[in-house]
Amino acid sequence: MNIGVLGTGPVGQTIGTHLVSKGHIVMLGSRSTNNPTAVKWATENNSRQGTFSDAALFGDIVFNCSFGNASLEVVKLAGIQNLHNKILIDVANPLDFSMGMPPRLTICNDSSLGEEIQKILPGTKVVKALNTVNNEIMVNPGKINGGGAELFICGNDEEARATVTELLVQEFGWKRECVIDLGGIIHARSTEALLLFFISIAMKYGTFYTGIKVLKG
Amino acid sequence: MNIGVLGTGPVGQTIGTHLVSKGHIVMLGSRSTNNPTAVKWATENNSRQGTFSDAALFGDIVFNCSFGNASLEVVKLAGIQNLHNKILIDVANPLDFSMGMPPRLTICNDSSLGEEIQKILPGTKVVKALNTVNNEIMVNPGKINGGGAELFICGNDEEARATVTELLVQEFGWKRECVIDLGGIIHARSTEALLLFFISIAMKYGTFYTGIKVLKG
Repeated sequence: MNIGVLGTGPVGQTIGTHLVSKGHIVMLGSRSTNNPTAVKWATENNSRQGTFSDAALFGDIVFNCSFGNASLEVVKLAGIQNLHNKILIDVANPLDFSMGMPPRLTICNDSSLGEEIQKILPGTKVVKALNTVNNEIMVNPGKINGGGAELFICGNDEEARATVTELLVQEFGWKRECVIDLGGIIHARSTEALLLFFISIAMKYGTFYTGIKVLKG
Repeated sequence: MNIGVLGTGPVGQTIGTHLVSKGHIVMLGSRSTNNPTAVKWATENNSRQGTFSDAALFGDIVFNCSFGNASLEVVKLAGIQNLHNKILIDVANPLDFSMGMPPRLTICNDSSLGEEIQKILPGTKVVKALNTVNNEIMVNPGKINGGGAELFICGNDEEARATVTELLVQEFGWKRECVIDLGGIIHARSTEALLLFFISIAMKYGTFYTGIKVLKG
Protein backbone atom coordinates (compact mmCIF):
# COMPACT_ATOMS: atom_id res chain seq x y z
CA MET A 1 0.00 0.00 0.00
CA ASN A 2 1.10 3.60 -0.50
CA ILE A 3 1.39 5.31 2.87
CA GLY A 4 1.78 9.03 3.52
CA VAL A 5 3.29 10.15 6.81
CA LEU A 6 2.91 13.77 7.94
CA GLY A 7 5.85 14.63 10.18
CA THR A 8 9.50 13.64 10.29
CA GLY A 9 10.01 13.31 14.05
CA PRO A 10 10.59 10.06 15.94
CA VAL A 11 6.94 8.99 15.61
CA GLY A 12 6.77 9.54 11.85
CA GLN A 13 10.14 7.89 11.26
CA THR A 14 9.33 4.89 13.45
CA ILE A 15 5.97 4.28 11.77
CA GLY A 16 7.48 4.91 8.31
CA THR A 17 10.41 2.57 8.81
CA HIS A 18 8.16 -0.13 10.21
CA LEU A 19 5.73 0.05 7.29
CA VAL A 20 8.63 -0.05 4.79
CA SER A 21 9.80 -3.23 6.53
CA LYS A 22 6.33 -4.65 5.95
CA GLY A 23 6.58 -4.01 2.21
CA HIS A 24 4.64 -0.77 1.92
CA ILE A 25 5.79 2.27 -0.02
CA VAL A 26 6.11 5.22 2.31
CA MET A 27 6.47 8.94 1.67
CA LEU A 28 7.51 11.13 4.60
CA GLY A 29 6.06 14.64 4.36
CA SER A 30 7.38 17.85 5.87
CA ARG A 31 6.92 21.61 5.42
CA SER A 32 9.37 21.80 2.56
CA THR A 33 10.65 19.32 0.04
CA ASN A 34 14.22 18.14 0.68
CA ASN A 35 13.97 18.59 4.44
CA PRO A 36 17.36 17.14 5.54
CA THR A 37 15.83 14.78 8.11
CA ALA A 38 13.34 13.46 5.56
CA VAL A 39 16.01 13.10 2.86
CA LYS A 40 18.26 11.15 5.25
CA TRP A 41 15.40 8.88 6.27
CA ALA A 42 14.28 8.32 2.66
CA THR A 43 17.83 7.53 1.55
CA GLU A 44 18.41 5.07 4.40
CA ASN A 45 15.05 3.38 3.85
CA ASN A 46 15.01 3.44 0.05
CA SER A 47 11.82 5.45 0.34
CA ARG A 48 10.31 8.80 -0.59
CA GLN A 49 10.00 12.27 0.86
CA GLY A 50 8.18 15.45 -0.09
CA THR A 51 5.93 18.18 1.23
CA PHE A 52 2.95 17.52 3.48
CA SER A 53 0.86 17.96 0.34
CA ASP A 54 2.94 15.43 -1.62
CA ALA A 55 2.67 12.85 1.17
CA ALA A 56 -1.09 13.37 1.53
CA LEU A 57 -1.63 12.96 -2.21
CA PHE A 58 0.63 9.89 -2.32
CA GLY A 59 -0.91 7.91 0.53
CA ASP A 60 -3.84 5.55 0.24
CA ILE A 61 -3.78 5.89 4.02
CA VAL A 62 -2.14 8.86 5.73
CA PHE A 63 -0.71 9.08 9.26
CA ASN A 64 -0.66 12.39 11.13
CA CYS A 65 2.58 12.20 13.11
CA SER A 66 3.18 15.94 13.36
CA PHE A 67 3.61 17.69 16.70
CA GLY A 68 0.14 18.04 18.18
CA ASN A 69 0.23 21.79 18.41
CA ALA A 70 1.16 22.08 14.73
CA SER A 71 -1.28 19.43 13.50
CA LEU A 72 -4.19 21.70 12.57
CA GLU A 73 -1.88 23.77 10.39
CA VAL A 74 -0.19 20.63 9.02
CA VAL A 75 -3.42 19.01 7.83
CA LYS A 76 -4.40 22.28 6.10
CA LEU A 77 -1.00 22.34 4.38
CA ALA A 78 -1.48 18.68 3.47
CA GLY A 79 -4.57 19.72 1.56
CA ILE A 80 -8.23 19.00 2.12
CA GLN A 81 -8.59 17.64 -1.45
CA ASN A 82 -5.47 15.46 -1.18
CA LEU A 83 -6.99 13.76 1.86
CA HIS A 84 -10.54 13.54 0.54
CA ASN A 85 -12.24 10.21 1.14
CA LYS A 86 -9.06 8.75 2.65
CA ILE A 87 -8.36 7.44 6.13
CA LEU A 88 -6.20 9.78 8.21
CA ILE A 89 -4.81 8.03 11.28
CA ASP A 90 -4.24 10.74 13.86
CA VAL A 91 -1.41 9.75 16.18
CA ALA A 92 -0.70 13.22 17.61
CA ASN A 93 -1.40 14.70 21.04
CA PRO A 94 -1.86 18.43 21.72
CA LEU A 95 0.71 18.48 24.51
CA ASP A 96 2.29 21.75 25.59
CA PHE A 97 5.47 21.42 27.64
CA SER A 98 6.24 25.17 27.55
CA MET A 99 5.12 25.67 31.14
CA GLY A 100 7.14 22.73 32.50
CA MET A 101 6.10 19.35 33.85
CA PRO A 102 3.51 18.07 33.88
CA PRO A 103 2.48 19.41 30.46
CA ARG A 104 -0.99 20.71 29.66
CA LEU A 105 -3.18 19.96 26.68
CA THR A 106 -3.88 22.89 24.35
CA ILE A 107 -7.22 21.33 23.36
CA CYS A 108 -9.20 19.25 25.81
CA ASN A 109 -12.40 18.57 27.68
CA ASP A 110 -14.88 20.28 25.30
CA SER A 111 -13.03 19.13 22.20
CA SER A 112 -9.92 17.26 21.11
CA LEU A 113 -7.29 17.40 18.42
CA GLY A 114 -8.95 14.46 16.68
CA GLU A 115 -12.28 16.29 16.53
CA GLU A 116 -10.72 19.55 15.35
CA ILE A 117 -8.88 17.72 12.55
CA GLN A 118 -12.14 16.02 11.56
CA LYS A 119 -13.82 19.46 11.39
CA ILE A 120 -11.11 20.74 9.03
CA LEU A 121 -11.35 17.56 6.91
CA PRO A 122 -15.07 16.74 6.72
CA GLY A 123 -14.54 14.45 3.70
CA THR A 124 -11.77 12.45 5.40
CA LYS A 125 -12.22 9.48 7.71
CA VAL A 126 -10.19 10.55 10.74
CA VAL A 127 -9.33 7.69 13.10
CA LYS A 128 -7.54 8.48 16.35
CA ALA A 129 -5.14 5.66 17.17
CA LEU A 130 -1.74 4.85 18.65
CA ASN A 131 -1.56 8.17 20.53
CA THR A 132 -1.47 6.56 23.97
CA VAL A 133 1.80 4.66 23.59
CA ASN A 134 5.44 5.47 22.97
CA ASN A 135 6.49 5.21 19.31
CA GLU A 136 8.58 2.09 19.92
CA ILE A 137 5.55 0.40 21.48
CA MET A 138 3.34 1.43 18.55
CA VAL A 139 5.20 -0.92 16.23
CA ASN A 140 6.25 -3.46 18.87
CA PRO A 141 3.42 -3.90 21.39
CA GLY A 142 5.09 -7.06 22.75
CA LYS A 143 7.61 -4.78 24.48
CA ILE A 144 5.01 -4.19 27.19
CA ASN A 145 4.15 -7.21 29.28
CA GLY A 146 4.13 -9.58 26.30
CA GLY A 147 1.63 -7.47 24.38
CA GLY A 148 -1.15 -7.21 26.95
CA ALA A 149 -1.62 -3.43 26.85
CA GLU A 150 -4.71 -2.13 25.10
CA LEU A 151 -4.99 0.44 22.35
CA PHE A 152 -8.05 2.67 22.12
CA ILE A 153 -9.26 3.85 18.73
CA CYS A 154 -12.11 6.11 17.69
CA GLY A 155 -13.50 7.78 14.60
CA ASN A 156 -16.87 8.56 13.07
CA ASP A 157 -16.64 6.00 10.24
CA GLU A 158 -17.18 2.45 11.42
CA GLU A 159 -15.63 0.87 8.32
CA ALA A 160 -12.54 3.06 8.66
CA ARG A 161 -12.17 1.97 12.30
CA ALA A 162 -12.37 -1.65 11.15
CA THR A 163 -9.72 -1.00 8.46
CA VAL A 164 -7.41 0.64 11.01
CA THR A 165 -7.97 -2.24 13.43
CA GLU A 166 -6.86 -4.69 10.70
CA LEU A 167 -3.79 -2.55 10.00
CA LEU A 168 -2.90 -2.48 13.70
CA VAL A 169 -3.34 -6.23 14.00
CA GLN A 170 -1.78 -7.35 10.71
CA GLU A 171 1.00 -4.81 10.26
CA PHE A 172 1.72 -3.41 13.72
CA GLY A 173 1.40 -6.65 15.70
CA TRP A 174 -1.37 -5.67 18.10
CA LYS A 175 -3.51 -8.53 19.39
CA ARG A 176 -7.05 -8.18 18.06
CA GLU A 177 -8.54 -8.32 21.55
CA CYS A 178 -6.26 -5.47 22.61
CA VAL A 179 -7.59 -2.98 20.04
CA ILE A 180 -10.59 -1.36 21.70
CA ASP A 181 -12.98 0.48 19.39
CA LEU A 182 -14.57 3.28 21.44
CA GLY A 183 -16.85 4.61 18.68
CA GLY A 184 -17.05 8.19 17.40
CA ILE A 185 -14.20 10.68 17.23
CA ILE A 186 -15.68 12.48 20.27
CA HIS A 187 -13.89 9.85 22.36
CA ALA A 188 -10.57 11.38 21.30
CA ARG A 189 -11.27 13.68 24.29
CA SER A 190 -10.77 10.62 26.47
CA THR A 191 -7.79 9.08 24.75
CA GLU A 192 -5.93 12.39 24.47
CA ALA A 193 -6.71 13.17 28.14
CA LEU A 194 -5.07 9.82 28.97
CA LEU A 195 -1.77 11.49 28.14
CA LEU A 196 -2.01 13.52 31.34
CA PHE A 197 -2.26 10.25 33.21
CA PHE A 198 0.55 8.58 31.26
CA ILE A 199 2.85 11.47 32.11
CA SER A 200 2.07 11.10 35.82
CA ILE A 201 2.87 7.42 35.41
CA ALA A 202 6.11 8.18 33.54
CA MET A 203 7.12 10.62 36.31
CA LYS A 204 6.48 7.85 38.85
CA TYR A 205 8.19 4.94 37.11
CA GLY A 206 10.80 6.83 35.08
CA THR A 207 9.75 5.23 31.80
CA PHE A 208 7.40 5.86 28.90
CA TYR A 209 7.27 2.13 28.17
CA THR A 210 3.88 1.74 29.73
CA GLY A 211 0.37 0.92 28.69
CA ILE A 212 -2.95 0.22 30.35
CA LYS A 213 -5.43 -2.58 30.37
CA VAL A 214 -9.07 -2.15 31.34
CA LEU A 215 -10.30 -4.70 33.86
CA LYS A 216 -14.00 -5.44 34.08
CA GLY A 217 -16.11 -6.68 36.97
CA MET B 1 -11.48 6.05 64.52
CA ASN B 2 -13.91 8.94 64.19
CA ILE B 3 -14.67 9.53 60.52
CA GLY B 4 -16.43 12.52 59.01
CA VAL B 5 -18.09 12.14 55.63
CA LEU B 6 -19.07 15.22 53.64
CA GLY B 7 -21.98 14.31 51.38
CA THR B 8 -24.98 12.01 51.73
CA GLY B 9 -25.15 10.59 48.19
CA PRO B 10 -24.34 7.01 47.18
CA VAL B 11 -20.57 7.55 47.58
CA GLY B 12 -20.81 9.02 51.08
CA GLN B 13 -23.31 6.41 52.22
CA THR B 14 -21.29 3.50 50.81
CA ILE B 15 -18.06 4.66 52.42
CA GLY B 16 -19.83 5.51 55.67
CA THR B 17 -21.64 2.17 55.90
CA HIS B 18 -18.45 0.28 55.10
CA LEU B 19 -16.43 2.10 57.76
CA VAL B 20 -19.18 1.50 60.35
CA SER B 21 -18.97 -2.21 59.51
CA LYS B 22 -15.25 -2.01 60.24
CA GLY B 23 -15.91 -0.62 63.72
CA HIS B 24 -15.38 3.09 63.12
CA ILE B 25 -17.70 5.82 64.31
CA VAL B 26 -19.02 7.77 61.34
CA MET B 27 -20.81 11.10 61.05
CA LEU B 28 -22.47 11.93 57.75
CA GLY B 29 -22.49 15.67 57.03
CA SER B 30 -24.86 17.64 54.85
CA ARG B 31 -25.92 21.26 54.36
CA SER B 32 -28.41 21.19 57.20
CA THR B 33 -28.75 19.11 60.30
CA ASN B 34 -31.54 16.54 60.17
CA ASN B 35 -31.29 16.12 56.40
CA PRO B 36 -33.81 13.25 55.87
CA THR B 37 -31.35 11.11 53.87
CA ALA B 38 -28.68 11.51 56.53
CA VAL B 39 -31.12 10.85 59.37
CA LYS B 40 -32.36 7.66 57.65
CA TRP B 41 -28.79 6.48 57.07
CA ALA B 42 -27.70 7.30 60.64
CA THR B 43 -30.73 5.50 62.09
CA GLU B 44 -30.19 2.40 59.98
CA ASN B 45 -26.47 2.32 60.76
CA ASN B 46 -26.65 3.31 64.40
CA SER B 47 -24.47 6.27 63.48
CA ARG B 48 -24.39 10.03 63.47
CA GLN B 49 -25.38 12.90 61.21
CA GLY B 50 -24.97 16.65 61.26
CA THR B 51 -23.89 19.61 59.19
CA PHE B 52 -20.76 19.63 57.05
CA SER B 53 -19.17 21.60 59.85
CA ASP B 54 -20.22 19.03 62.48
CA ALA B 55 -18.82 16.15 60.40
CA ALA B 56 -15.54 17.97 59.72
CA LEU B 57 -15.07 18.73 63.41
CA PHE B 58 -15.98 15.15 64.39
CA GLY B 59 -13.68 13.30 62.03
CA ASP B 60 -10.07 12.40 62.76
CA ILE B 61 -10.07 11.75 59.02
CA VAL B 62 -12.65 13.34 56.71
CA PHE B 63 -13.87 12.12 53.32
CA ASN B 64 -15.09 14.60 50.70
CA CYS B 65 -17.89 12.69 48.99
CA SER B 66 -19.88 15.72 47.87
CA PHE B 67 -20.77 16.30 44.22
CA GLY B 68 -17.63 17.58 42.54
CA ASN B 69 -19.16 20.82 41.41
CA ALA B 70 -20.31 21.63 44.94
CA SER B 71 -17.12 20.50 46.65
CA LEU B 72 -15.35 23.87 46.86
CA GLU B 73 -18.40 25.35 48.58
CA VAL B 74 -18.81 22.26 50.76
CA VAL B 75 -15.26 22.35 52.15
CA LYS B 76 -15.70 26.05 52.97
CA LEU B 77 -18.95 25.22 54.79
CA ALA B 78 -17.13 22.37 56.55
CA GLY B 79 -14.79 24.95 57.97
CA ILE B 80 -11.10 25.59 57.43
CA GLN B 81 -10.43 25.40 61.18
CA ASN B 82 -12.44 22.19 61.61
CA LEU B 83 -10.23 20.50 59.03
CA HIS B 84 -6.95 22.01 60.19
CA ASN B 85 -4.07 19.53 60.33
CA LYS B 86 -6.37 16.65 59.38
CA ILE B 87 -6.34 14.36 56.37
CA LEU B 88 -9.12 15.10 53.89
CA ILE B 89 -9.59 12.25 51.42
CA ASP B 90 -11.04 13.84 48.29
CA VAL B 91 -13.13 11.28 46.42
CA ALA B 92 -15.05 13.75 44.23
CA ASN B 93 -14.80 14.50 40.51
CA PRO B 94 -15.78 17.83 38.92
CA LEU B 95 -18.04 16.20 36.32
CA ASP B 96 -20.69 18.25 34.56
CA PHE B 97 -23.40 16.22 32.79
CA SER B 98 -25.54 19.28 31.98
CA MET B 99 -24.54 19.25 28.34
CA GLY B 100 -25.19 15.53 27.86
CA MET B 101 -22.88 12.61 27.32
CA PRO B 102 -19.97 12.46 27.48
CA PRO B 103 -19.73 14.89 30.41
CA ARG B 104 -17.09 17.57 30.71
CA LEU B 105 -14.92 18.49 33.67
CA THR B 106 -15.51 21.92 35.18
CA ILE B 107 -11.88 22.07 36.35
CA CYS B 108 -9.15 20.37 34.37
CA ASN B 109 -5.83 20.53 32.57
CA ASP B 110 -4.33 23.59 34.34
CA SER B 111 -5.74 22.61 37.71
CA SER B 112 -7.95 20.03 39.38
CA LEU B 113 -10.55 19.81 42.08
CA GLY B 114 -7.97 18.25 44.39
CA GLU B 115 -5.61 21.20 43.93
CA GLU B 116 -8.37 23.79 44.36
CA ILE B 117 -9.50 22.13 47.60
CA GLN B 118 -5.89 22.11 48.82
CA LYS B 119 -5.67 25.87 48.07
CA ILE B 120 -8.78 26.54 50.16
CA LEU B 121 -7.44 24.34 52.98
CA PRO B 122 -3.69 25.07 53.18
CA GLY B 123 -3.43 23.57 56.67
CA THR B 124 -5.15 20.32 55.67
CA LYS B 125 -3.49 17.26 54.13
CA VAL B 126 -5.62 16.70 51.04
CA VAL B 127 -5.19 13.25 49.50
CA LYS B 128 -6.99 12.46 46.27
CA ALA B 129 -8.07 8.84 46.26
CA LEU B 130 -10.83 6.44 45.22
CA ASN B 131 -12.18 8.87 42.60
CA THR B 132 -11.48 6.56 39.66
CA VAL B 133 -13.77 3.71 40.66
CA ASN B 134 -17.47 3.18 41.23
CA ASN B 135 -18.53 3.46 44.89
CA GLU B 136 -19.23 -0.28 45.16
CA ILE B 137 -15.71 -1.01 43.93
CA MET B 138 -14.20 1.48 46.40
CA VAL B 139 -15.13 -0.75 49.32
CA ASN B 140 -15.00 -4.07 47.45
CA PRO B 141 -12.08 -4.00 44.97
CA GLY B 142 -12.34 -7.77 44.50
CA LYS B 143 -15.46 -7.14 42.38
CA ILE B 144 -13.15 -6.28 39.48
CA ASN B 145 -11.09 -9.16 38.20
CA GLY B 146 -10.33 -10.53 41.65
CA GLY B 147 -8.94 -7.22 42.85
CA GLY B 148 -6.34 -6.55 40.15
CA ALA B 149 -7.37 -2.98 39.31
CA GLU B 150 -5.10 -0.22 40.53
CA LEU B 151 -5.97 2.86 42.55
CA PHE B 152 -4.02 6.08 42.08
CA ILE B 153 -3.53 8.42 45.01
CA CYS B 154 -1.80 11.77 45.31
CA GLY B 155 -1.32 14.57 47.81
CA ASN B 156 1.41 16.92 48.95
CA ASP B 157 2.05 15.25 52.32
CA GLU B 158 3.96 11.99 52.03
CA GLU B 159 3.00 10.77 55.50
CA ALA B 160 -0.67 11.45 54.78
CA ARG B 161 -0.42 9.44 51.55
CA ALA B 162 1.10 6.57 53.53
CA THR B 163 -1.72 6.79 56.10
CA VAL B 164 -4.35 6.75 53.36
CA THR B 165 -2.62 3.81 51.70
CA GLU B 166 -2.83 1.87 55.00
CA LEU B 167 -6.52 2.76 55.30
CA LEU B 168 -7.19 1.58 51.74
CA VAL B 169 -5.32 -1.67 52.35
CA GLN B 170 -6.49 -2.46 55.90
CA GLU B 171 -10.05 -1.16 55.84
CA PHE B 172 -11.09 -1.03 52.18
CA GLY B 173 -9.46 -4.26 51.03
CA TRP B 174 -7.16 -2.92 48.32
CA LYS B 175 -4.02 -4.95 47.69
CA ARG B 176 -0.97 -2.97 48.72
CA GLU B 177 0.65 -3.38 45.29
CA CYS B 178 -2.51 -1.99 43.67
CA VAL B 179 -2.38 1.37 45.50
CA ILE B 180 -0.14 3.56 43.35
CA ASP B 181 1.24 6.69 45.00
CA LEU B 182 1.73 9.29 42.27
CA GLY B 183 3.19 12.01 44.48
CA GLY B 184 1.93 15.60 44.81
CA ILE B 185 -1.66 16.77 44.54
CA ILE B 186 -0.86 18.20 41.08
CA HIS B 187 -1.38 14.65 39.79
CA ALA B 188 -5.08 15.00 40.61
CA ARG B 189 -5.17 16.57 37.12
CA SER B 190 -4.34 13.14 35.78
CA THR B 191 -6.57 11.04 37.96
CA GLU B 192 -9.57 13.35 37.52
CA ALA B 193 -8.98 13.43 33.74
CA LEU B 194 -9.15 9.62 33.84
CA LEU B 195 -12.88 10.05 34.41
CA LEU B 196 -13.28 11.16 30.79
CA PHE B 197 -11.71 7.87 29.77
CA PHE B 198 -13.75 5.79 32.21
CA ILE B 199 -16.94 7.27 30.79
CA SER B 200 -15.90 6.32 27.25
CA ILE B 201 -15.24 2.84 28.59
CA ALA B 202 -18.62 2.76 30.38
CA MET B 203 -20.35 3.85 27.14
CA LYS B 204 -18.56 1.01 25.33
CA TYR B 205 -19.10 -1.81 27.81
CA GLY B 206 -22.33 -0.64 29.45
CA THR B 207 -20.93 -0.84 32.96
CA PHE B 208 -19.16 1.32 35.50
CA TYR B 209 -17.64 -1.77 37.13
CA THR B 210 -14.27 -1.19 35.52
CA GLY B 211 -10.76 -0.32 36.57
CA ILE B 212 -7.37 -0.09 34.95
CA LYS B 213 -4.00 -1.63 35.52
CA VAL B 214 -0.76 -0.08 34.27
CA LEU B 215 1.48 -2.50 32.39
CA LYS B 216 5.19 -1.78 32.19
CA GLY B 217 7.75 -2.77 29.58
